[in-house]
Amino acid sequence: MLLGKVVGTLVATRKDEKLQGFKFLVVKRLNIESEETGDYVIAADAVQAGIGDVVLYATGSSARQTVLTDKKPCDAVLMAIVDTWEVDGATKYQKE
Amino acid sequence: MLLGKVVGTLVATRKDEKLQGFKFLVVKRLNIESEETGDYVIAADAVQAGIGDVVLYATGSSARQTVLTDKKPCDAVLMAIVDTWEVDGATKYQKE
Amino acid sequence: MLLGKVVGTLVATRKDEKLQGFKFLVVKRLNIESEETGDYVIAADAVQAGIGDVVLYATGSSARQTVLTDKKPCDAVLMAIVDTWEVDGATKYQKE
Amino acid sequence: MLLGKVVGTLVATRKDEKLQGFKFLVVKRLNIESEETGDYVIAADAVQAGIGDVVLYATGSSARQTVLTDKKPCDAVLMAIVDTWEVDGATKYQKE
Amino acid sequence: MLLGKVVGTLVATRKDEKLQGFKFLVVKRLNIESEETGDYVIAADAVQAGIGDVVLYATGSSARQTVLTDKKPCDAVLMAIVDTWEVDGATKYQKE
Repeated sequence: MLLGKVVGTLVATRKDEKLQGFKFLVVKRLNIESEETGDYVIAADAVQAGIGDVVLYATGSSARQTVLTDKKPCDAVLMAIVDTWEVDGATKYQKE
Repeated sequence: MLLGKVVGTLVATRKDEKLQGFKFLVVKRLNIESEETGDYVIAADAVQAGIGDVVLYATGSSARQTVLTDKKPCDAVLMAIVDTWEVDGATKYQKE
Repeated sequence: MLLGKVVGTLVATRKDEKLQGFKFLVVKRLNIESEETGDYVIAADAVQAGIGDVVLYATGSSARQTVLTDKKPCDAVLMAIVDTWEVDGATKYQKE
Repeated sequence: MLLGKVVGTLVATRKDEKLQGFKFLVVKRLNIESEETGDYVIAADAVQAGIGDVVLYATGSSARQTVLTDKKPCDAVLMAIVDTWEVDGATKYQKE
Repeated sequence: MLLGKVVGTLVATRKDEKLQGFKFLVVKRLNIESEETGDYVIAADAVQAGIGDVVLYATGSSARQTVLTDKKPCDAVLMAIVDTWEVDGATKYQKE
């Protein structure tokens, strides 16, 4: 999984029939220092994340292993909202 | 999923038998500022997209989860036409 | 899918038993301007491509969705020979 | 598989229901000289690794082939703790 | 598939139970000029390769399509030992 920050929403009225009702979030990828990397992903949301949340996302076929995304043409899903992580004993992110 | 812009079509008469009737679109990848990145993908089209449309595309096994692409040797599919998205409260793209 | 140009063949006598009889092609990846990118893939061939052909190739599990590659340890397959494509109304490649 | 070093833990209270009880580790990717590459992955742990352990991790659908990760929305798993490896006859890493 | 050169072995005593008895090889990725690229993979070995062999390897779910790797948490497998390949009519590698 990779770290990301939810920075916005995406609206798509015309989409594959299996995706009706889907909400897509715009997610900036973070590095383990909690800094933006310049990369991004548009993901489905299995954890009711909100703007500003730091999240974990899974990609590929693993992104279809939630109830929401099962058998859907979706290759990225937010599957956890991060509380905190540390690297070499130092806290790199702490949810407020 | 990633963001792309449909910029053209590709014709391939000789192809795997499972792909008969397939229409391939040439898609330039966009970043979240709605700018071209220099990367591209050739994708199947599950949403009847047209030239100039901004789209979401899924890759890998997830690209085979539409009725069109089921069990086909196809690793990229357009699964949504984008209306709009925003980043940090600013609209980055708005369909005309 | 990505664009490639078949530039050679690869011979491998000792290979996994499921791959007996497989022919491998050396493929240079192209960008949408029809230029070589420096990247490559060694692919199985589901469309009887020849040296010099411009092709589409699929990777990952999608590469196993042809009769030739079904259930084989193969992660790249040529699934179409390209006739032509265009970008923003300009033809970028035309088969001779 | 790729080489990594476990450098920390990640806590996520709100996560997909299938991931209840999961422990996530922060892993820095190593090159074959045993040096950090700047890349990382957040992975599930099938081998009870600890901080400082050098590990092998698998990604994609292969990451779901352990008892722990079966059918879970998880795309990276630690599946071995490395004792040693060598390159061109020279030992590049030796567990203490 | 990609080209690689087997440069060493990796020992991991503690590993996922499904991997008992597995032998891991350290493989440097090659480009089509037969030069090292700086990239690598740690792979299972379905073809009894030895140090110095030039090989083809498959990744992702395709790496689980050998008898050895079926249903194992393994995302890279050597599936062929290369005898020779050519590019634009010139031999780039010839097994001795």
